[in-house]
Formats: sequence, C-alpha cells, structure tokens
Amino acid sequence: MPVNENAAPGRVGDVRRRNLSLVLDSIARTGDAKPSRAQLAAATGLTKAAVSSLVAELVESGLVSEVGLYRDGERGRPGQGLELSPRRGVVGMEINVDYLAVGLVDLGGNLRFTTTVESHNRGLKPGEVMAKLAELAGEAKGAAAAGDIAILGGGLAVPGLVDEARSVVLSAPNLHWEHEQLNVDALLGDVPLGVRLSNEANSAALGELWYGAGQPDFLYVSGEVGVGGGVIIGSELYTGPGGSAGELGHIVVHPEGSGCSCGGVGCLETFAGQEAVFEAAGIAPGPLSGRTAALLAALADKEPRAVKAVDDAGKYLGVALASSARLMDIEAVVLGGHFAELAEWLRPAVLASVERHAPGLVRPEDLKVSGLKHAGTLLGAAGQVIRSVIASPLGLVVTDRTA
Amino acid sequence: MPVNENAAPGRVGDVRRRNLSLVLDSIARTGDAKPSRAQLAAATGLTKAAVSSLVAELVESGLVSEVGLYRDGERGRPGQGLELSPRRGVVGMEINVDYLAVGLVDLGGNLRFTTTVESHNRGLKPGEVMAKLAELAGEAKGAAAAGDIAILGGGLAVPGLVDEARSVVLSAPNLHWEHEQLNVDALLGDVPLGVRLSNEANSAALGELWYGAGQPDFLYVSGEVGVGGGVIIGSELYTGPGGSAGELGHIVVHPEGSGCSCGGVGCLETFAGQEAVFEAAGIAPGPLSGRTAALLAALADKEPRAVKAVDDAGKYLGVALASSARLMDIEAVVLGGHFAELAEWLRPAVLASVERHAPGLVRPEDLKVSGLKHAGTLLGAAGQVIRSVIASPLGLVVTDRTA
Repeated sequence: MPVNENAAPGRVGDVRRRNLSLVLDSIARTGDAKPSRAQLAAATGLTKAAVSSLVAELVESGLVSEVGLYRDGERGRPGQGLELSPRRGVVGMEINVDYLAVGLVDLGGNLRFTTTVESHNRGLKPGEVMAKLAELAGEAKGAAAAGDIAILGGGLAVPGLVDEARSVVLSAPNLHWEHEQLNVDALLGDVPLGVRLSNEANSAALGELWYGAGQPDFLYVSGEVGVGGGVIIGSELYTGPGGSAGELGHIVVHPEGSGCSCGGVGCLETFAGQEAVFEAAGIAPGPLSGRTAALLAALADKEPRAVKAVDDAGKYLGVALASSARLMDIEAVVLGGHFAELAEWLRPAVLASVERHAPGLVRPEDLKVSGLKHAGTLLGAAGQVIRSVIASPLGLVVTDRTA
Repeated sequence: MPVNENAAPGRVGDVRRRNLSLVLDSIARTGDAKPSRAQLAAATGLTKAAVSSLVAELVESGLVSEVGLYRDGERGRPGQGLELSPRRGVVGMEINVDYLAVGLVDLGGNLRFTTTVESHNRGLKPGEVMAKLAELAGEAKGAAAAGDIAILGGGLAVPGLVDEARSVVLSAPNLHWEHEQLNVDALLGDVPLGVRLSNEANSAALGELWYGAGQPDFLYVSGEVGVGGGVIIGSELYTGPGGSAGELGHIVVHPEGSGCSCGGVGCLETFAGQEAVFEAAGIAPGPLSGRTAALLAALADKEPRAVKAVDDAGKYLGVALASSARLMDIEAVVLGGHFAELAEWLRPAVLASVERHAPGLVRPEDLKVSGLKHAGTLLGAAGQVIRSVIASPLGLVVTDRTA
C-alpha cells in the first residue's frame, strides 16, 4: 500500500517536505561525489543547521547513509560524505513476451541483483504470468534480505499501454492482453510504497535518462518482440494528452507493408521487431537466447539472409527515425533491447537510411546504443519509484516531533 | 522597434504589470460577451476598485473600448461592456511560394481587411519579395487609416524555419532561401511593436487555436506548395528543442518514393503538396487560382485522373497522420490551405487510410477542416503579436503616475 502522506503529522508542513526533497535531490544529483553537509548547504541555499537537521532525519529513516571519505588534498580524519542509502531498495520487474525479469535497485540506482527467465507469456492469463513473476520477485526479496536491504516498493513494466493509477493494462497486443487488471500488490507483499505499473519502453527511456546515456531530449527505441519507444523532452517523459505517446513501433514505414499486431498495416514493428528479424534471417523457432545467439553467429559469418534481415530492419528503423525527427524535432536516439545487441550490424543501415530520408538531420554521434541493454527497463521501472521518494520523502521519514 | 518595457517607470512594478495582463486576458477570453467591470472583478479575483483603475488605463491607452449594451433582462440605461479595442490593429503578412497576402487584424481578432496577390516568389531574392510585400502592406495601412485603426505591429509568416529573434529565414527550401536576413522593420515603418517573423504552418496552427476550430491538443496540417504542420499541445505551440518541430510534410510516407525539395526521399510533400497534386491530376501549369479552379471542376466532373490524384494525396496524408498520432498521441487534426479547399474529396481518402494504418485511432469527428482557410496564417501571425500585448501590455499603457 502506498504511504498516505496526509497521515503524516499536520505540523510537518510544506516547507519541511520541500526541504527534505531538496536535500535528497541534491544528494542524488551529485551521485558518486558523496557531498558533505556543508556542500549540501551551498548547493541548496539552506543553512548548515537546517541541512544538519534534515540530514539527521533522512539518516534516521534510512534513506541516506554516511560514508567516511578523504577528499582531494585532505589529510587526517576522513570527512563524512552522504549518499542515497545502499540499504534501501526498489524491485524493478518486467513482463515481456518471451521473458520475465526482476532486479533489485538500491536508492543510488545500483542494480544489486538481477535475474531473467524465458517465459512464453503470449496468450497466457495475466494471473498465471503474475504468479510466475511473484516467484521471481521472491528471489529479489531473498537477495535483499541477504544484503540487509529493506525493500520500499516495486515498479512493474509491461509492453503495452497502462492505466498506472488503477494498475490496469489497457492494451498489450503482443501479449494478447486487453483491459486486464493486475494484482500488483501481491508481487512483493507488504511494502511501504506498493508496486507501480508502467509501460516498458517508457520505463527503459527513463532508465536511460537517469542511469544511462540519457540527455535532455532523446528518443529511446526499444527492440523486443514489439518495438516500443519512449520520448524524453526537457528531461521529462512525454506521454501525450492520452498517455500513449511514443508508439514508435507503429509508425508506418511502408504503406503496402504487411499486417501488424496492432491491426494496422506497414508498421515498423513488422520489419524490425524481434520475430520479424529472426524470421527474415531464417533463424529456426526456439528459445529466445538460442535464436539471438544463432542470429549473431550468422551475422559474424556474413550469412546473406541474416545480413539482409538486419539491413532491412535498420533501413526501416531509419525511416521511422527520420519521420519522428521531422515531427518532434528530436534528433538524439538511444537504441535499446535487441537493437542494442545487433548494433554493430544495424547502426550503419540505420544511419544510411536516416541520411537518405532526412539528410543532415541525425548525425552519427546522435545515434547511441544503450549500455544498459535490457536492464534499462528494470532500472527505469524501479527508478520511477525512487524518484517519487526523492520528490516526496515525507511519508518515509521518521520525524522528530520535538524539532 | 519593439517597445522596451524596462523603459517604463520603475515604480510601476510587477504586480501592476501582471494585473493589467490579467484584465486584458480576461476580456480576451470572454470574447463576444463583452464583460462589465464587475464581471471582470469576479473573473480575476481583483477588487472592483482595482479593476476600475486598470480598465481606465487600458481605455486611455486605447487597448480596450467601452460599448454600451443591454444584458438579458435588463431595462433602462445600457450597461458598459468592455472589449479589446477595434481601433488597434496588427498587420498579418504571409510570403508563400505562389502568393503574398496581408491582413489587418484588430485586437479582438477580427480580420478587418485582407488582400492576396499571386506572386511567383521561388528563387527571387528576399529583397525583391519584401519590396512587393511592403507595397501590399501599404494597402493594409491605408485600410487602417481609413478605419481609424492604429497599427501596433506586424507578424510575417514564411514557409520555412526561422530564427524569430534575429528575423532570419534559416531554411525555406520551396523558396530556395537559406539563411536570409529579412529587413522586417521596413515593411510597416515605425510601429510600436515592430514585425515578428514566424513559420507559416505554426502561425496557421495558432490562428486555428485562437480564432478557429482549435482545441487544446491538435495537429494543424497546412497544404500549400509545401506541406507544413503545427503541433498544439496543451493550448501551446510545440516547437521542439531546436525550434523545428511539426515538419509533417517531411514525414516519410513511402520509402521508395521520389526526391523532395528537402533533399529527402518519399516525403508526404512529394505526394500531397499542391504541385504534386496538380501534376498528378493533369492540371496545366499556370496561375494558382486558375489551377485550383480547374482541379475543383475536374473533381466535380469525376475526371478519373483528378479523382485519383486527390485520393492518393489523401491516402498518403492518412499515412503521415497515423504515424504522427502514434508518436505524439495527438489524434485531433485540422486540415488547412489547399487541403481545406479539397476537403470534400480528400477527407474520405484520409479517413480510410488512417483507419487502415492505425485502426480506431482517429475518429471521423477528430479530422476537422479549417474554416479560416488561408486567412488562418494571417490571423496567427498577427495573433502572436496580439498575444504578446495581452501578456505584457505595460509598454503600451499610459500610466497615471499619481495613481
């Protein structure tokens, strides 16, 4: 169950709430630098006394930890640096068409444990899939217990449109799920912040923004069985008036193309989705990891069908990127999922195609490959919960009522 | 020259500036209702005394007029309603490939005078075109003088990317202009707010938002020789990180299409731009108005080439709209320019194509036709200046220093 902030003592007003957030955010932004109290005072504009009091609360509540460290040019006793606590974590979870994944992410954004299992979820009832995922989440809970990490909440990403507030999957065509209510609270049991449902590509885009190669404006392209996208504008996720923006996989790249899972015709996904590429490359059906390995081996051998399949995927991905750059004026792109795995072969074809259709618009250095690969989704799903803690920590803070 | 607000008396602080804007905005929003001072006080939350003082300044400066009017159920002496003054105006101007247009727009958004002349501007030097436009603007000035309307400034729309702050056309491929500095101040002579340069499709989108069929989120599609677009999100123009968003004409609608003026391949403009449609329909070269009339006559006669040309344009426009709805999650569309003129024949093809590529996404009632037609650009170009007056009227207000 999410903590009800309104249940916090009424005397703890908006100023304290905002200042706790300010200090947490400042620690989060400095990242590995582990700022001192004095540095936080300078960064936030608060007095040292106020910072000390706020930090004391944050340390007591377990959200912030002190680390002894030497700074450049210092001698003698180490100073006290502050970091978001490695002893508090959020479980990122992902349901995709061919696999389930979970990861334990600490408040500093470090992936402390992760596991992925192949699972053919298409057409299964959500209840069955959620039961398997809960088992996997149990492993993350075990890892947390072993590492003395308290779990604050979870984030669950699915390849489809979701209603986050009601934990409903509105439409996930590649899973054959339409309007399915998910019992997300059963995944982790009783955790302070509950479990937040999100879209897979949006989560991966946010993971990239916060923990990867993100920049203020970019398009994240997720290559899975489906092709998804996440649009980051001004360091925020753009979801559109109805919440379903970024459906890059359903940009039309050939008006006479074939039918798509969305009911449309000629969508990018029909050319560049995982199954489309495997099929075009002549990779026999089977478990996902085996097919990926077979495709990579065929590419290394310059097997013509494999090379053409990936070239074509790159060509159509380039068409979609040219169109989206024209429409949204966002030239920077981060390729994730199987596009990242295939990047060595895919990237030249993408660049040639974008240059053909929108000359000069996307420079080679604007087309990046995610270093997070599939973990980006887990980091982003968990990261949304971590960001909510940073923005609004009051419900988790042990407040000294005499202060 | 724009009025320098910093030159206003220092004692006139931010509060007065904001309150003047609040009152003007409230009058603008109520539009034809012509609110009373008491109604403005209720709408703004200001006291009646404050509203009276602010209105007095706005009336004295000529931005607001009083009109006597009877309200429902009232008898006796008419009450005083307030409106944005019909005696103050802004000149909207447009340079397009085949024509020049000017319009005189009063502060209430009424087009008081307009004229359009055919002019083959492609490849002409900007100086030549600007000299012809200045002549045409002279007619608007004459109309203003005849109607006792003082001109506050102007807005100039061009079919290309612009740097508004420096009055530079960065790129207008259909005019063959690249990095051309325009001497916009010479167009109207000495006017308080100068002349503001803008993109044609963006201006038309804003014209539609403020004075036409606009709603908070929609895509405006401008059909001229080029095909342009304007993206309205949350009642604001989305221009993207680099200022060039909404280039709908250069969405790729067929990967094996023909070359485009932008240097790309398969852009919407190559299928649905005015010249592409005339050519496909077999309409002989000649003046624009004659070609449009010939095309409309051929369509009325169900001449197969003409019908197919417009069907194809609609089909590819549908492909682009499907892609943009997927990416930006904006389903509402307003068709302008020659798309509006051809709407009767074009609209069914657009709807069928969108339904084929993105089933269920764009409902027929979401695909509107601009009632403003070509005037939308003039209204939007002028409207941006009018909005700047409403947002920041202080420089134009005669302030009573003893108040």
